[in-house]
Amino acid sequence: MSNRQSNRQSAIGNRQSFRAVNPRTGEALEPAFAEATLEDVGRAAAAAASAFRVWSRTAPDARARVLRAAAENLEADRERIVATADLESGLGTARLSGELDRTTGQIRMFAALIEEGSFVDATISHGDPDARPLPRPDVRRLRVPLGPVAVVTPSNFPLAFGAAGGDTASALAAGCPVVVKGHASHPGTSALCAAALDAAAAESGAPEGLLSLLQARATEIPAALVRAPEVQAVAFTGSRGGGRALLDIAAARPQPIPVYAEMGSLNPLFIGPSALAARADAIADGLAASIVLGTGQFCTKPGLVFVPDDHRGVAFAGALAARVAAREAGPLLNAGIAGHLAGQAARTAALPAVQALAGPGETPSAGYWASGMIVSATVDEFLGTPALQEEHFGPFAVVIRCPPGRMPQVAATLEGSLTATVHAEGEDLSWAAALEDVLRDRAGRLVWNGYPTGVAVVDAMHHGGPYPACSSPLFTSVGTAAIARFLRPVAYQNVPEALLPEALRESNPLRILRRIDGRVTRAPHAD
Amino acid sequence: MSNRQSNRQSAIGNRQSFRAVNPRTGEALEPAFAEATLEDVGRAAAAAASAFRVWSRTAPDARARVLRAAAENLEADRERIVATADLESGLGTARLSGELDRTTGQIRMFAALIEEGSFVDATISHGDPDARPLPRPDVRRLRVPLGPVAVVTPSNFPLAFGAAGGDTASALAAGCPVVVKGHASHPGTSALCAAALDAAAAESGAPEGLLSLLQARATEIPAALVRAPEVQAVAFTGSRGGGRALLDIAAARPQPIPVYAEMGSLNPLFIGPSALAARADAIADGLAASIVLGTGQFCTKPGLVFVPDDHRGVAFAGALAARVAAREAGPLLNAGIAGHLAGQAARTAALPAVQALAGPGETPSAGYWASGMIVSATVDEFLGTPALQEEHFGPFAVVIRCPPGRMPQVAATLEGSLTATVHAEGEDLSWAAALEDVLRDRAGRLVWNGYPTGVAVVDAMHHGGPYPACSSPLFTSVGTAAIARFLRPVAYQNVPEALLPEALRESNPLRILRRIDGRVTRAPHAD
Repeated sequence: MSNRQSNRQSAIGNRQSFRAVNPRTGEALEPAFAEATLEDVGRAAAAAASAFRVWSRTAPDARARVLRAAAENLEADRERIVATADLESGLGTARLSGELDRTTGQIRMFAALIEEGSFVDATISHGDPDARPLPRPDVRRLRVPLGPVAVVTPSNFPLAFGAAGGDTASALAAGCPVVVKGHASHPGTSALCAAALDAAAAESGAPEGLLSLLQARATEIPAALVRAPEVQAVAFTGSRGGGRALLDIAAARPQPIPVYAEMGSLNPLFIGPSALAARADAIADGLAASIVLGTGQFCTKPGLVFVPDDHRGVAFAGALAARVAAREAGPLLNAGIAGHLAGQAARTAALPAVQALAGPGETPSAGYWASGMIVSATVDEFLGTPALQEEHFGPFAVVIRCPPGRMPQVAATLEGSLTATVHAEGEDLSWAAALEDVLRDRAGRLVWNGYPTGVAVVDAMHHGGPYPACSSPLFTSVGTAAIARFLRPVAYQNVPEALLPEALRESNPLRILRRIDGRVTRAPHAD
Repeated sequence: MSNRQSNRQSAIGNRQSFRAVNPRTGEALEPAFAEATLEDVGRAAAAAASAFRVWSRTAPDARARVLRAAAENLEADRERIVATADLESGLGTARLSGELDRTTGQIRMFAALIEEGSFVDATISHGDPDARPLPRPDVRRLRVPLGPVAVVTPSNFPLAFGAAGGDTASALAAGCPVVVKGHASHPGTSALCAAALDAAAAESGAPEGLLSLLQARATEIPAALVRAPEVQAVAFTGSRGGGRALLDIAAARPQPIPVYAEMGSLNPLFIGPSALAARADAIADGLAASIVLGTGQFCTKPGLVFVPDDHRGVAFAGALAARVAAREAGPLLNAGIAGHLAGQAARTAALPAVQALAGPGETPSAGYWASGMIVSATVDEFLGTPALQEEHFGPFAVVIRCPPGRMPQVAATLEGSLTATVHAEGEDLSWAAALEDVLRDRAGRLVWNGYPTGVAVVDAMHHGGPYPACSSPLFTSVGTAAIARFLRPVAYQNVPEALLPEALRESNPLRILRRIDGRVTRAPHAD
């Protein structure tokens, strides 16, 4: 265990160290954490490469056992994890206990996925020795683990996207060791989550180096991790600036590697005239709750709200602003987010094109707090004001008054988002159809008569979207499909049964679902 | 048709122009082709974006009809296409007629794939309004077209990877318009293939801009195409230098886009002692044919041959060299390839570590010809000589004498390849198992007792591999899975049946295979 633990000691020696800060008070928290060094990065990457040789050849069932044990360890340590995460993030124990459930739920979902076994996407094309002009070989393909994965975690989901979050779980399930760069806002939480995984790995004899945690504030550490030649893929959740920096580093490597970066989003929401006539109050309630949820620190927070440019739209903007203003201020995750939001929101609210409808309200003088803010503009002012088309990370939204008939055309000009939402009733339907058709090209998830915050962890989820929401619109970081980021196909041509991976053997000993000569079946043969 | 044809006029006006060269004679061929300008690039990209709005919403059946009509047009023009390609490439009419069959076979394969419909990967997770702590929404996901695609074509497959080749066919099938940069070695062939597609598109009322062809020698043209903001993905086949240049341009865009680059490969082949004892002559025959096939200008040409370091290995190297030396010289595709190979091969053969066993032989004085070349080295010399670990594009291979027990360890040090091949018999089996296990991480396709040239166009094929063979090891450019490069997922949350894409409707009107609540079925419901 000494190797495993070396990067998460709170004893410091002569290293640099840092403490988390309680965002509710601004006070530094104990203990101090040793800042990872470039040597630590090199050691962790090398250990991951060494672990890859074992873990990538470990049967999915055995990998699933480690994941399930980790989920149990996390739940056994729930009280301490939730309390630590609450102190470090200010997100509240109810939310964090729910987030722990989501985290262990995700881990068990990936365990079940690899136990079932079909995730390797086994495909068999039988040969034909009599084919003309050339005999056709027997070709069989499956997906194998990609290699060591770097997971660079965000501040806003200390558990579900943290050291034992969905990126780590999907990579480990795929057969890839992980080096986590823990977010400096919650080192204690990261250490506890990594320890739960570590203990599960150690109990079951999983290889050393399966998971390493690097605790660091310095951006040189994730940069060095992405440069490490052993690392074969990067999962990142965070800001656009941070994601793009890692993307550029990965692209400049002698061997470029994929960076799956989820970088936040505007998440436009459109309200049709009939929907507004039918249920303005209910939408204002739901939308206000969605905007201030977690003090607005969701990558799926609805940041742009398009309403009809009539008296109902104006009244709705006021009603939404009143609800947001009535909410208590909430803590932001750290000084950086608080400082950025305060400056950005003040500049935006002061723009001549912009009408400030709510906030900023009173906040405690100590710590990092924000109250909800709503500003409004006409669609032409919106289109002419780049600042309104930038994400304001926090409880901030822009209401845009727009003729409903123009909304599809305006939607087509928006940058890529994780989500887009339409509220429609009755006579809105043909308008909504036109809008959804446009939004399909601008977002990864289309929400109907709802709110984008809250990402269901299900098979069919897509948590991704066109740039700049994500670095690649082809992949999701939530749901079972997230495992695809860490698998690559390999084809076997005319390889004898005894040397084939079990998933590709004619006898189908794993009884997995396979595509054989175009037919999907669990049977040994196509028919 | 005027817009469609504007980039492929052979009438020049005051533009720059160029002619193809007959590689057998070095003589310029008629007619001259107008060199595309930066304005042409901008026009083609804009036309593709405009076509995307229509083509991406065109039903798969209608897209398939255009593809099938294109295949018929190509076959109807077979004589002229094959003759032109032969003049421009020197690859021979038999090979090129076979390549035309492969090309139309690929086009019809993608047509059948989208007609069948399951390629959209429809996934449905039903909601649960009673779920705790929160109701679970209904989420449904399918894959939609990514956007306009740039296809940058190579010289060595004028048809199968040309203007109407697999990259174009898979992108069009996916719903993405294509801008092709035709290779300057065969502009006449590109023009004919594009015309066959154009005619099919025009007959069926497909949108203008569905396919544009840019004819150019200047590298600024593909560079500008990859920079064009409308382009959303790039498919490239060619050299490592060319691929990496486009990769770097795509990564530096304000919006980075995926480049699916296939950049050639060493394709190591390993021969076990028992295999050598049992069938040295047969292997020498097959391997010699594979090395000189198409004058060695295959990205899957076996470039490294590992043999046991005993008398049988030495004898085999000699036997292989004799067979290669006995083959007639063949034409290379162009002056660039010929000049590069001649210089590179001469430098390699002159290295003190290297023993030249065959070639270079006599070649005609006019045109661009090469005869087969075999050099040999010990494994330690090989490991210490970087020049031996570089692809020599042409009929050139290195035989490495190596103790069989060291081959797995040496294999682990090789750079990524498209393929790796093992020849084994009887007592070689456990050695072969160890070797295959290592090669799984170094190659995209493992070939058993065969030769890597000739890529079967089947469901299970993977034509890809770790960098530098490919820019991304997750994708294939051959086989039905190639369509995945041009599709992105979109999730629909709580969207009413009438507004859902047909593939996601509860009633499953398309009768496609879907994953519903974890079960794969063609039925409307999960059970």
